[in-house]
Amino acid sequence: MQLLDGKALATQIKTEIAAEVARMVANGAPKPHLAAILVGNDSASETYVAHKVKACQEVGFDSTLIRLSEQTTEAELLDYIAQLNNDPQIDGFIVQLPLPPAINPDNVTLAIDYRKDVDGFHPVNVGRMVQGLPCFLPATPFGIVELLRRNQIETAGKHCVVVGRSNIVGKPVSMMLAQNSPTANCTVTLCHSRTRNLAAYTRQADILIAALGKPEFVTADMVKQGAVIIDVGTTRVPDPSKKSGYRLAGDVKFDEVAPLCSYITPYQVA
Amino acid sequence: MQLLDGKALATQIKTEIAAEVARMVANGAPKPHLAAILVGNDSASETYVAHKVKACQEVGFDSTLIRLSEQTTEAELLDYIAQLNNDPQIDGFIVQLPLPPAINPDNVTLAIDYRKDVDGFHPVNVGRMVQGLPCFLPATPFGIVELLRRNQIETAGKHCVVVGRSNIVGKPVSMMLAQNSPTANCTVTLCHSRTRNLAAYTRQADILIAALGKPEFVTADMVKQGAVIIDVGTTRVPDPSKKSGYRLAGDVKFDEVAPLCSYITPYQVA
Repeated sequence: MQLLDGKALATQIKTEIAAEVARMVANGAPKPHLAAILVGNDSASETYVAHKVKACQEVGFDSTLIRLSEQTTEAELLDYIAQLNNDPQIDGFIVQLPLPPAINPDNVTLAIDYRKDVDGFHPVNVGRMVQGLPCFLPATPFGIVELLRRNQIETAGKHCVVVGRSNIVGKPVSMMLAQNSPTANCTVTLCHSRTRNLAAYTRQADILIAALGKPEFVTADMVKQGAVIIDVGTTRVPDPSKKSGYRLAGDVKFDEVAPLCSYITPYQVA
Repeated sequence: MQLLDGKALATQIKTEIAAEVARMVANGAPKPHLAAILVGNDSASETYVAHKVKACQEVGFDSTLIRLSEQTTEAELLDYIAQLNNDPQIDGFIVQLPLPPAINPDNVTLAIDYRKDVDGFHPVNVGRMVQGLPCFLPATPFGIVELLRRNQIETAGKHCVVVGRSNIVGKPVSMMLAQNSPTANCTVTLCHSRTRNLAAYTRQADILIAALGKPEFVTADMVKQGAVIIDVGTTRVPDPSKKSGYRLAGDVKFDEVAPLCSYITPYQVA
């Protein structure tokens, strides 16, 4: 069993991007400039955005963080988005989700110019992804594809079973891995809350992607010997032994599943 | 075994649309107006467009057919598209595919205003379909969903196996039937040319959608007893006994598969 080390891979990718940015800048190009809009004070969102700002620094991007209050109206937010769409200094931007309940996230996603939509959530980017055209790809599914590719895990002709049909992970990764591409070409089964006899599918998986958000849901009896397991789950589970009062739990019962696998992502502990 | 009669269903749907149009017009609304652009003289395209014009007449739509020569440039075609995009009299339009080789079909699809893209091929519509948002749905996949729904064939929790990953049928129908919706909720497996041991998947199918374009490819040994079979294939096969010199062949070997099925679409003969 081999661990798929996403953190080490992220470091490597950032090194590659930093080298590319350095070359661009040496050739007289401006630094890429990423902006992020954070509405309110959701603590997980604060963490995510801080990571993105830090990643920009690491690779040599300029970054701008726009903080808006929890009371921001949808119209005000759309106005900020229009400014970023029209600002030639800004190459791409994200609006951190979730948004306060008074703001419709679909309206926000649609308002972002798809050419600056680095999250890849705009329907134009989703549609182009499905059609196999160049586009911004959503981060988690693209990360999974890269994790497989850079670990030389064969995908062509393999049976990939995806559990969970979210717009952010399950649906896009199932489409990306089914594409006619050297980094894909999987036979893909998309399972979800309405799937009957789920284990009958997961036991067929050469590559199993668990993205349903139920802690330790995937147990040893659901996994084929030699499978590759990608655990996308990060659910907060109360844990009095932690300073924060919780730990992040994966969707896979790591201790019992890991010995069966050829490759598996590490269990989330934080 | 029961035949799924798409022709009878189409007639019924047209009757419903005609009644709705009559109500709209009685309430003072203008007739819906569909335009079609046909470039060149491809004989299959001529037939398709003629059917669409006829369907418009049957349901009470106005229709406009714009015929352009095989020598039309991409720039000229894009200009016609811009005119239709901006014409408030035109509610929707299609550009019949395939186009002459000098014209890039992706550029054409992208040029159509997605709000008039009744074919549902614009990435915005594809993306919104994936995300479960209101949009124009592509005709063949939506036809399959309607064929299942109007025949009261249960889809929730059923294993649907789609063979073929085209942008027009395989990919969209696999996404549509996996959605969290009363007319979907299938567990969906998408198979294609790189799938290994295809029969191992198709034999699991409660609903099998054959959309690969290989005449009589699906044989009895690939089908589970009681399955629902949707045959999307229409390949021209030479047939000297026909006046046209060919017949249209389905992807399913009807004679041997039909006795196994609960429901099956008829074999194409024309």
